[in-house]
Amino acid sequence: MGNIPIDAVMGTVLDSVMSTAFWIGILWVLTKIALYFVAGRVLVGIAGRAITHIVIDRKTAGKGPVRFDPRRAQTIGRLVNNVVSYAVNFIVLMLILSELGVDLAPLLAGAGVMGLAIGFGAQSLVKDVITGFFIIFEDQFAVGDVIKTGNFQGTVEEIGLRVTRIKSWTGEVHIIPNGAITEVTNFSTNNTVSVVDVSISYESDIDRAAEVIRRTAKEVSETNANIVKEPEVLGVQQLGASEVVIRVTAECKPMTHVGVGRELNAAIKKALDAEGIEIPYPRMVMLQRTE
Amino acid sequence: MGNIPIDAVMGTVLDSVMSTAFWIGILWVLTKIALYFVAGRVLVGIAGRAITHIVIDRKTAGKGPVRFDPRRAQTIGRLVNNVVSYAVNFIVLMLILSELGVDLAPLLAGAGVMGLAIGFGAQSLVKDVITGFFIIFEDQFAVGDVIKTGNFQGTVEEIGLRVTRIKSWTGEVHIIPNGAITEVTNFSTNNTVSVVDVSISYESDIDRAAEVIRRTAKEVSETNANIVKEPEVLGVQQLGASEVVIRVTAECKPMTHVGVGRELNAAIKKALDAEGIEIPYPRMVMLQRTE
Amino acid sequence: MGNIPIDAVMGTVLDSVMSTAFWIGILWVLTKIALYFVAGRVLVGIAGRAITHIVIDRKTAGKGPVRFDPRRAQTIGRLVNNVVSYAVNFIVLMLILSELGVDLAPLLAGAGVMGLAIGFGAQSLVKDVITGFFIIFEDQFAVGDVIKTGNFQGTVEEIGLRVTRIKSWTGEVHIIPNGAITEVTNFSTNNTVSVVDVSISYESDIDRAAEVIRRTAKEVSETNANIVKEPEVLGVQQLGASEVVIRVTAECKPMTHVGVGRELNAAIKKALDAEGIEIPYPRMVMLQRTE
Amino acid sequence: MGNIPIDAVMGTVLDSVMSTAFWIGILWVLTKIALYFVAGRVLVGIAGRAITHIVIDRKTAGKGPVRFDPRRAQTIGRLVNNVVSYAVNFIVLMLILSELGVDLAPLLAGAGVMGLAIGFGAQSLVKDVITGFFIIFEDQFAVGDVIKTGNFQGTVEEIGLRVTRIKSWTGEVHIIPNGAITEVTNFSTNNTVSVVDVSISYESDIDRAAEVIRRTAKEVSETNANIVKEPEVLGVQQLGASEVVIRVTAECKPMTHVGVGRELNAAIKKALDAEGIEIPYPRMVMLQRTE
Amino acid sequence: MGNIPIDAVMGTVLDSVMSTAFWIGILWVLTKIALYFVAGRVLVGIAGRAITHIVIDRKTAGKGPVRFDPRRAQTIGRLVNNVVSYAVNFIVLMLILSELGVDLAPLLAGAGVMGLAIGFGAQSLVKDVITGFFIIFEDQFAVGDVIKTGNFQGTVEEIGLRVTRIKSWTGEVHIIPNGAITEVTNFSTNNTVSVVDVSISYESDIDRAAEVIRRTAKEVSETNANIVKEPEVLGVQQLGASEVVIRVTAECKPMTHVGVGRELNAAIKKALDAEGIEIPYPRMVMLQRTE
Amino acid sequence: MGNIPIDAVMGTVLDSVMSTAFWIGILWVLTKIALYFVAGRVLVGIAGRAITHIVIDRKTAGKGPVRFDPRRAQTIGRLVNNVVSYAVNFIVLMLILSELGVDLAPLLAGAGVMGLAIGFGAQSLVKDVITGFFIIFEDQFAVGDVIKTGNFQGTVEEIGLRVTRIKSWTGEVHIIPNGAITEVTNFSTNNTVSVVDVSISYESDIDRAAEVIRRTAKEVSETNANIVKEPEVLGVQQLGASEVVIRVTAECKPMTHVGVGRELNAAIKKALDAEGIEIPYPRMVMLQRTE
Amino acid sequence: MGNIPIDAVMGTVLDSVMSTAFWIGILWVLTKIALYFVAGRVLVGIAGRAITHIVIDRKTAGKGPVRFDPRRAQTIGRLVNNVVSYAVNFIVLMLILSELGVDLAPLLAGAGVMGLAIGFGAQSLVKDVITGFFIIFEDQFAVGDVIKTGNFQGTVEEIGLRVTRIKSWTGEVHIIPNGAITEVTNFSTNNTVSVVDVSISYESDIDRAAEVIRRTAKEVSETNANIVKEPEVLGVQQLGASEVVIRVTAECKPMTHVGVGRELNAAIKKALDAEGIEIPYPRMVMLQRTE
Repeated sequence: MGNIPIDAVMGTVLDSVMSTAFWIGILWVLTKIALYFVAGRVLVGIAGRAITHIVIDRKTAGKGPVRFDPRRAQTIGRLVNNVVSYAVNFIVLMLILSELGVDLAPLLAGAGVMGLAIGFGAQSLVKDVITGFFIIFEDQFAVGDVIKTGNFQGTVEEIGLRVTRIKSWTGEVHIIPNGAITEVTNFSTNNTVSVVDVSISYESDIDRAAEVIRRTAKEVSETNANIVKEPEVLGVQQLGASEVVIRVTAECKPMTHVGVGRELNAAIKKALDAEGIEIPYPRMVMLQRTE
Repeated sequence: MGNIPIDAVMGTVLDSVMSTAFWIGILWVLTKIALYFVAGRVLVGIAGRAITHIVIDRKTAGKGPVRFDPRRAQTIGRLVNNVVSYAVNFIVLMLILSELGVDLAPLLAGAGVMGLAIGFGAQSLVKDVITGFFIIFEDQFAVGDVIKTGNFQGTVEEIGLRVTRIKSWTGEVHIIPNGAITEVTNFSTNNTVSVVDVSISYESDIDRAAEVIRRTAKEVSETNANIVKEPEVLGVQQLGASEVVIRVTAECKPMTHVGVGRELNAAIKKALDAEGIEIPYPRMVMLQRTE
Repeated sequence: MGNIPIDAVMGTVLDSVMSTAFWIGILWVLTKIALYFVAGRVLVGIAGRAITHIVIDRKTAGKGPVRFDPRRAQTIGRLVNNVVSYAVNFIVLMLILSELGVDLAPLLAGAGVMGLAIGFGAQSLVKDVITGFFIIFEDQFAVGDVIKTGNFQGTVEEIGLRVTRIKSWTGEVHIIPNGAITEVTNFSTNNTVSVVDVSISYESDIDRAAEVIRRTAKEVSETNANIVKEPEVLGVQQLGASEVVIRVTAECKPMTHVGVGRELNAAIKKALDAEGIEIPYPRMVMLQRTE
Repeated sequence: MGNIPIDAVMGTVLDSVMSTAFWIGILWVLTKIALYFVAGRVLVGIAGRAITHIVIDRKTAGKGPVRFDPRRAQTIGRLVNNVVSYAVNFIVLMLILSELGVDLAPLLAGAGVMGLAIGFGAQSLVKDVITGFFIIFEDQFAVGDVIKTGNFQGTVEEIGLRVTRIKSWTGEVHIIPNGAITEVTNFSTNNTVSVVDVSISYESDIDRAAEVIRRTAKEVSETNANIVKEPEVLGVQQLGASEVVIRVTAECKPMTHVGVGRELNAAIKKALDAEGIEIPYPRMVMLQRTE
Repeated sequence: MGNIPIDAVMGTVLDSVMSTAFWIGILWVLTKIALYFVAGRVLVGIAGRAITHIVIDRKTAGKGPVRFDPRRAQTIGRLVNNVVSYAVNFIVLMLILSELGVDLAPLLAGAGVMGLAIGFGAQSLVKDVITGFFIIFEDQFAVGDVIKTGNFQGTVEEIGLRVTRIKSWTGEVHIIPNGAITEVTNFSTNNTVSVVDVSISYESDIDRAAEVIRRTAKEVSETNANIVKEPEVLGVQQLGASEVVIRVTAECKPMTHVGVGRELNAAIKKALDAEGIEIPYPRMVMLQRTE
Repeated sequence: MGNIPIDAVMGTVLDSVMSTAFWIGILWVLTKIALYFVAGRVLVGIAGRAITHIVIDRKTAGKGPVRFDPRRAQTIGRLVNNVVSYAVNFIVLMLILSELGVDLAPLLAGAGVMGLAIGFGAQSLVKDVITGFFIIFEDQFAVGDVIKTGNFQGTVEEIGLRVTRIKSWTGEVHIIPNGAITEVTNFSTNNTVSVVDVSISYESDIDRAAEVIRRTAKEVSETNANIVKEPEVLGVQQLGASEVVIRVTAECKPMTHVGVGRELNAAIKKALDAEGIEIPYPRMVMLQRTE
Repeated sequence: MGNIPIDAVMGTVLDSVMSTAFWIGILWVLTKIALYFVAGRVLVGIAGRAITHIVIDRKTAGKGPVRFDPRRAQTIGRLVNNVVSYAVNFIVLMLILSELGVDLAPLLAGAGVMGLAIGFGAQSLVKDVITGFFIIFEDQFAVGDVIKTGNFQGTVEEIGLRVTRIKSWTGEVHIIPNGAITEVTNFSTNNTVSVVDVSISYESDIDRAAEVIRRTAKEVSETNANIVKEPEVLGVQQLGASEVVIRVTAECKPMTHVGVGRELNAAIKKALDAEGIEIPYPRMVMLQRTE
């Protein structure tokens, strides 16, 4: 590069442009590239449908001798889809580059300045693939799970070779390189606990309020199928500035604790009103003084 | 460098400056450089118009045998434009440097101190290009999408080989190297959910307020085409210090949730006023005491 | 790669696809791969049950000549399970890749650009395994302990070769690579201290309040088996804006301090009420002035 | 270093100091150094004026066959100035060092400890130059644009080979190495939007207030040439604690939105006063209670 | 790896499993491994008791010709214990691996991809050991000292070869790799100062209040053996919003300043009450206005 | 190291200590070291005074054919002083080490473990020197300028080869390695703008208040020589909770804006008082309600 | 390691343990080790006392031909002490290891995986020593100075080869590796400025208040020897929510500004009281409204 006789090259280039053979060659190459391109797209499309049919849609998953967890089947199905797409596109790219006369081998083998820069620049790519492999291998989470990593929370839509796609409950899609997923919180593998803190006034009878709360929470749990165990009143969580805080917890089916919490809020508020137990506003003692 | 016989060089330089041939040579070189420069600009201009005509503007995109998503066509069109501009300018630069007698090859091949420094210094450049390639290949986002990455949110204007340009809704343009785009949130691929939290006073009837809110939100959804599903009143989100917070959500077309939220705010406020349900101000219990 | 005669390869590929032998060969390879896969799953299953039987479930653990702490036995049992799973799956993967004709050795041995990228990309993998080894070797924590590392707190469910799984008390599972576990806080090895700060008004008699608190805390400690030492009233922790803060501490069995704190809160609140000692609301002196 | 026969060197040094030839030699060298230095300064000065004359000041920029954006012309003019200054000074430094008998080549070629340290130490220098090149090549911003990068905002004064100078509107100059400019926000390429949030009381009629605001903003836009589109009242942005917030936006010429916002503030405040629509103070409901 | 003839290996494996000699061989190896394991545990146990007897428990420490600080003796005793445990276990592990036919030498010597990854992955391990060595060598802290490093504070329980264990006063154990201990604060080597800020009202006489505080603090210091110097009233630390803040300090024995502060709080509060000097509540001037 | 026959060395050492020649040798070496040391200090002292005389103190700076900015002359003078001090001390150190028989060359040339550690450890040293060179070469700031870098602001006292010393206005000296000075804000090269935000009540007439402020600011500018342009009233900056904020700006001589701001504060406050325009206290609407 | 014939070694070990010669050999080695150890401690002790006598305690420091700043003498004395301790202990360690037959040379020379890990792990060690050298060489701070680095402030107790010890005014000792000391603030080299902000009410006469403050501050400066220049009233620093803030500054001897500030606080408060100038409490305008 830079060492090649530029002038001579330019002359040849100008000559070539004039001849007809040159234009036919270009047309031929372009046709081949287009063919490769179309073939790649068709292959990816066929493979995608096949995988969807065999692994993802099959209601019979989990019936053969080697039983599959349907949750993992869907995850792996999408991953295979993703890997096939990478592989086919990579081969098509190589064919097209070879058609254009570009040879990547020396670039990748060269250990000079370029090699150093590429090696360092590509390290996060390698890390993404390694981490992605372990996420699936260790079953850290699967498609459909609700997870949180860093500041991003949502339902996993796809675990790819390089990136994972998470859809938050308000609709936006977070795309996170696998290498950036170090610490993951999975909300879908266990029952979750709904924690409701109820404030009562300092004048109220703590034991009676706790009993009302307990009874109300129990009634809610009897009608709400998401609550799997009778709710528990833990006791006086805090002696606040203007209120005594009583904590009640309810173990729920995975990811239903927010809804259960809302129902408990409403039910307990009504019950305390009915019993005449005050939920206090912020209070302040005013000491009037004349200057 | 440093090793060259500086004195001799200076002498030759002074001699040369005196002769006419020297000045003619310089003129010739400058003319060639100017020609290369002009040719480069012309080429980039022609290529840009051709690409715009073929890929971006064509209303017929998506009609040939290999159908293109028009959204991706625009993205790739601008990328090709960007790549052509880099390539042509790079060749022009090489020609000009070769004209000036500068040879970059030994510098890039040298594995000494300079090579080390250049290799490390250029690694983020390589990372930018690799990440940019995967952003488009994996269709993380396309031109026209609204995305958020790091602290920057806006509409994608161009995904280049090295940088991505995002335009925020208040008009400023964020230019972000692709390598710095690790975690992306895409707001344009799914319906988004408008979340409105309404405060009512502790004295109000929760069920009646929820019913009013539900009815109002439904009326809004019937006139507002951006709402795709009947809004849902989730329940008592929180028992606040001075107010009971009721949450209502509405699934909207992508990126319309802010406007829908504004309309819901206004409609619900009016409906609660009409029904005599109080939206409470902050409250405080004052306990007067004489010292 | 790129250097191989792509055209020739494509021709051979097309020829092969036509012949029957080709299809039989593929079937044979697929069958072998399936066999390896099934064998691997069966092996891992058997090993898992055996280990569970011998190490984890055995009530007799700690009876042989080399006594095992049952807490460590469970930890190591799960780790062995995890290691066996990695090992078997790794061998199966190697067999399958060898069946498919993929040879990883040159890739791993190559010291070029790919080697550099892989070496750097894999370094966090190595760090995970080394750190995981030391966590168990140094008995930093064991399965069943409550630990905190970074922002994640919960009960340890499994310490694997590469990741540790922690379950928080509200049900979600945190999955943390061992290499990210630098500083650990273990709550399960020692008695924990419940710290309760009680606010009394500035007008109250500090000594009498401290005596009431001391007596109440002692009564609680006599009925609550989790308190291992008589609670101690430390004194006036702070002269606050509106209140005098008295601190009382109680040493409890590991991880019971939160529950003990709740019981102390309730008991002390009732005792102060009974004694007529005021828990003050925030106060403010209002100086009325006419403009 | 350290290996040289220090004693012998000291002896020779002492001998030399005594002879006259030594002093004449020193004088001669100093004279040459001074000459190089003066020549360098003169050259930089001449080049600076020439460039300013040709590229920066020329009113005719944009008239030749290759039209220049005057904005880029100024940027590149200052950059060329900066590069010439670096180049001339570098050559002068080399000449002076050669005069003093210092030879840098072995130091830069050596791959030992010093080479390692220099290579790593210089990597940010290389990164600065590469990033600076791309800032100008990609036209991320130009001299005169208002940009923000990191915590620094202001008008670009110069984009140099290594650093960029930004002048904030309060007068201080921020000097930022180009390598530290990763994510840039450019305020000068697009129209900016002035966003004004107006608070009205809960008792006010939202629709009438919105109409007054809309009319006032329109009147302002008719007299203020910086507003390029009729301002738009978006609706009820928020139901605040004591106020209903109505948002109005106005698209303005680049960087005029702050001034437009000030004018809108004043006009809307007066209009609401005239119409008797209250801009509310913070409110609180006081519940008097006797203890 | 990967290059080995997998099929042949599998055949041999299946053949072997059938023969009796194979099973006897396995038994023999397992017996030897068990023996090594038991021997290792016994050795570590004996060494531990010996060291505890000689260095840690010995009341005679500090009586021989080379006197030991008992504080350092305990630290070093535990470290030696820790080092012996590492060494014995390392040898046992080597013996077991050698029994199983695993040879680590080529892995560690190989400079390829694996070597690079291991070298980088292990660097924090090396850093831990080096830092740990210097912590003890420089006597930065010893077992029993109260230290703070990063966000962790507590009493040092053990300084090991790789990690340090700190027990906080509320009972939890922090385990910190030595390499993560960069900046340490040691609370146990010097007397600590108890700082008490007392607020008095703006109407109070500053000098009289300071005198009362001084007298009270002096009385406390006469009964509290932890105060080593007469407390000092520094003066008016701050003119606050509602109060004048007077600071008093008392030099105490190491780590007793919190308790001393509590005693001073109580004593000064009572003394100010007795003298009729007001500790003010927050104040606000209310300017009543009719709209 | 470690390989040397320690026993033999010890023997020789003991023998040597007995002989007289050994002691004379030591005395001779110590004398030479002392001489080198004294010579170094004398040289640095003389050079310092010479430089101060020629470059820093000379009132005639800026009179010769090559004119020097006196601001840069002082900066470079101190730098030369600093460099001379480093150079002389380095040579003295080398002479002393050579006298003691220590040879650093092999250590620096060795590419083993020590070389790696030294190379990495010294990289920030190299970075400091490179950055320091560019700070002066690019005239980022000079001795006497007020700059801010990171969290440190103050007047530059010295720009050395490795560190820069900044003196804050309250007297403390910040010593910052040049390599840590990435982004610099220089307050001394341009006029600075004093920004004063004045609050008036919502009841006041905005236009009249703006006029009073404008007039007062103009009067101040006529008597205060630091204000270089007539102050400008920008308009209503914000409609605050209890006040309307009017912003006025005044362009001042470099670094005088704080003092100008203080004068404007006082003058505007008095003028508003005289005109009866209220500067409002925080306001709150109290809604009395009986429970 | 791992390659050695473990079985043979074990046999030899068992044989040796039986013979008497083995035990005598061990005793001999242990004796020698003990001797080395004692000799090392004695040497360090003697050297310490000698250095303390010569450099630190000598009242005559600064009387010889090469005058020493006594502040630097103390710093260097402690450093030499520290270096001697490192050197002697290092030699003793080498002697002991050589006695035990451990040879570190191959380990340090090996460029394999271990070398890489050690080289990287030790780089911060090297950085500590280099930075420590420059701290003393550049006289950034000396023993006895009050400095701040990172979050740690206090009096320097010792600058060692690797760590610096700082004692905070409340007694705790911060131990900071020299490499972590990048940016230092030294409070002891210059006079420090005491800044006192006094609040007066909006109704007070600013000029009269400023005059009272000026007079009071001057009176304080006449009796307080720590104030080196007459205090200066800068003017109206801020127009606050409820108060006008007047700033007064007083230049004091190094590190006395906190005490001076306390004295100014008290004196100004009394003076304003005497003059009837109000220090205002927070104010709020209450607008009573009936619902």
